[in-house]
Amino acid sequence: MFREEIKVFDCTIRDGGLINNHDFDRRFVRECYKSLSQAGVDYMEMGYKNSKELFSPKEFGLWKFCDDDEIEKIIDGIESNTKISIMVDVGRVKLEDVKPKAESPVDMIRTACYVKDIDKAIHMANHFDEKGYETTINIMAISRDMGPELDEALHQVEEESHVKVLYIVDSFGALYQEPVEHLIKKAKGILKTREVGFHGHNHQQLAFSNTIEAIIHDANFLDGTVYGIGRAAGNCPLELLIGFLKNPKFDIRPILDLISKELIPLRTKIEWGYIIPYAISGMMNVHPRTAMALRKTKKKEDYREFYEGLVDTEAD
Amino acid sequence: MFREEIKVFDCTIRDGGLINNHDFDRRFVRECYKSLSQAGVDYMEMGYKNSKELFSPKEFGLWKFCDDDEIEKIIDGIESNTKISIMVDVGRVKLEDVKPKAESPVDMIRTACYVKDIDKAIHMANHFDEKGYETTINIMAISRDMGPELDEALHQVEEESHVKVLYIVDSFGALYQEPVEHLIKKAKGILKTREVGFHGHNHQQLAFSNTIEAIIHDANFLDGTVYGIGRAAGNCPLELLIGFLKNPKFDIRPILDLISKELIPLRTKIEWGYIIPYAISGMMNVHPRTAMALRKTKKKEDYREFYEGLVDTEAD
Repeated sequence: MFREEIKVFDCTIRDGGLINNHDFDRRFVRECYKSLSQAGVDYMEMGYKNSKELFSPKEFGLWKFCDDDEIEKIIDGIESNTKISIMVDVGRVKLEDVKPKAESPVDMIRTACYVKDIDKAIHMANHFDEKGYETTINIMAISRDMGPELDEALHQVEEESHVKVLYIVDSFGALYQEPVEHLIKKAKGILKTREVGFHGHNHQQLAFSNTIEAIIHDANFLDGTVYGIGRAAGNCPLELLIGFLKNPKFDIRPILDLISKELIPLRTKIEWGYIIPYAISGMMNVHPRTAMALRKTKKKEDYREFYEGLVDTEAD
Repeated sequence: MFREEIKVFDCTIRDGGLINNHDFDRRFVRECYKSLSQAGVDYMEMGYKNSKELFSPKEFGLWKFCDDDEIEKIIDGIESNTKISIMVDVGRVKLEDVKPKAESPVDMIRTACYVKDIDKAIHMANHFDEKGYETTINIMAISRDMGPELDEALHQVEEESHVKVLYIVDSFGALYQEPVEHLIKKAKGILKTREVGFHGHNHQQLAFSNTIEAIIHDANFLDGTVYGIGRAAGNCPLELLIGFLKNPKFDIRPILDLISKELIPLRTKIEWGYIIPYAISGMMNVHPRTAMALRKTKKKEDYREFYEGLVDTEAD
């Protein structure tokens, strides 16, 4: 698939940070930035911009806050065309903490929200737009919000926001290709002046195929992470996405090196990937938080009990 | 997806046998048979029927040969509606070793072949049909054989064979959903009086999504293996397939138990799943044999060198 408008967007540090309290050391983040730059990846997301009044820097790593000077240390001296992104959640950032684009190494700010918070997200995204950043709104947990409220939210984004991209986010790893087709077509139909993006989760081994499905239906912003690292089962493996895309600007080899040298050792310390309780969460279309909690207990391989517990909860 | 004609076909012992010389012990195979029976799985494939003149029982386990009396020991005393299948390769079985169906516990014989061997496969499958078995022909390595020879082979199967099912087999894990749609539609268009099946490999994490794609386009025989066990990256995880299908006859819980108790421990002894050299083989549309050889060497995580070696080979 060669479509020049396609942008590959790496979330390794940001989504990976959800499984290690955002505590990647600077060396690791620099290695990622170097490899992604060499590979021709369009964007790299460094983490979240959270208010330090809400979260303590003693409890979380650098990438929960993404201070501009920390980002400067990562990119310093590395030749790159890769743009820098950070993510914000509705209600967790102080807008005045975000400097004007001219004073920041950040190129893009992505605002994550649920459908119900779309007004707040538009307000925030427009604020960042006024400060000079590229902006997106990323609608999370979309598999539970596919009704008329979603249509209205999409219309609002088109009519009231200045965002460059509207993202469909399959937080629960619950979608397969037919709902992805439905959602991307719906978004493209309403957001006639914007790009559409897709962020998958891999609970049922569908993140890559769903990303292909999004490409087929003209989504141009595609999220992935190196070796699929990310919350619970993780995300679309960036190496598979780059292997699929035919644009000669991408080079898979620096990503292969990064996996050999950094991700394989890291995977022995923190857990992500195809793990049955996450697969069950995806099948049941629920947040993986109960599965993530289970994995920290002695019952982590008691799949039947976990499954029956979820069935009971959903039946309540 | 609820379509009563859909049959779920388990290849755990057969495709899993390709990574352990078919040497599963009887206890393990019985546990699988019990769980698959309880789960409502339609077929279970026990392994290959190979001539003992070609392969030595000293070098391979029981399931390289699938003697009827060994199968009898597995199924003895277990209540089940699950049919028993075995696979044969063109040129590796003595037809006279196969008894008439009335004297055998086997219900189905699947003949695997490449497009070029279709005449031989039809001859063999018709022989098994005459002996009273359900039969299929499984066309392997289809991602390298999608031209006019495939069309001719499909017409031959429709016109000259008595098989119940024609299988599309993505041996290299190279297909994504658009080629699967193309192949299944082509097969359904030519094989008007037969069922079409799909057997995926998971090199690029696409086995499950490709199986869904096959379902969408009316393939009714769907292969999977428990926890995805199988050659190289393995197969479509049976638990995901059963989680997706809505026919109430299927029960995922016995499969979850089987994974907890048997597959998780087994995975610490033999390797399958998402492993970068297999992903590269899939991207490059080649047999995983060089990747499988690499995994037995000290260079098993040297992905760049492996990739560049394949690129050179393909350019020769």
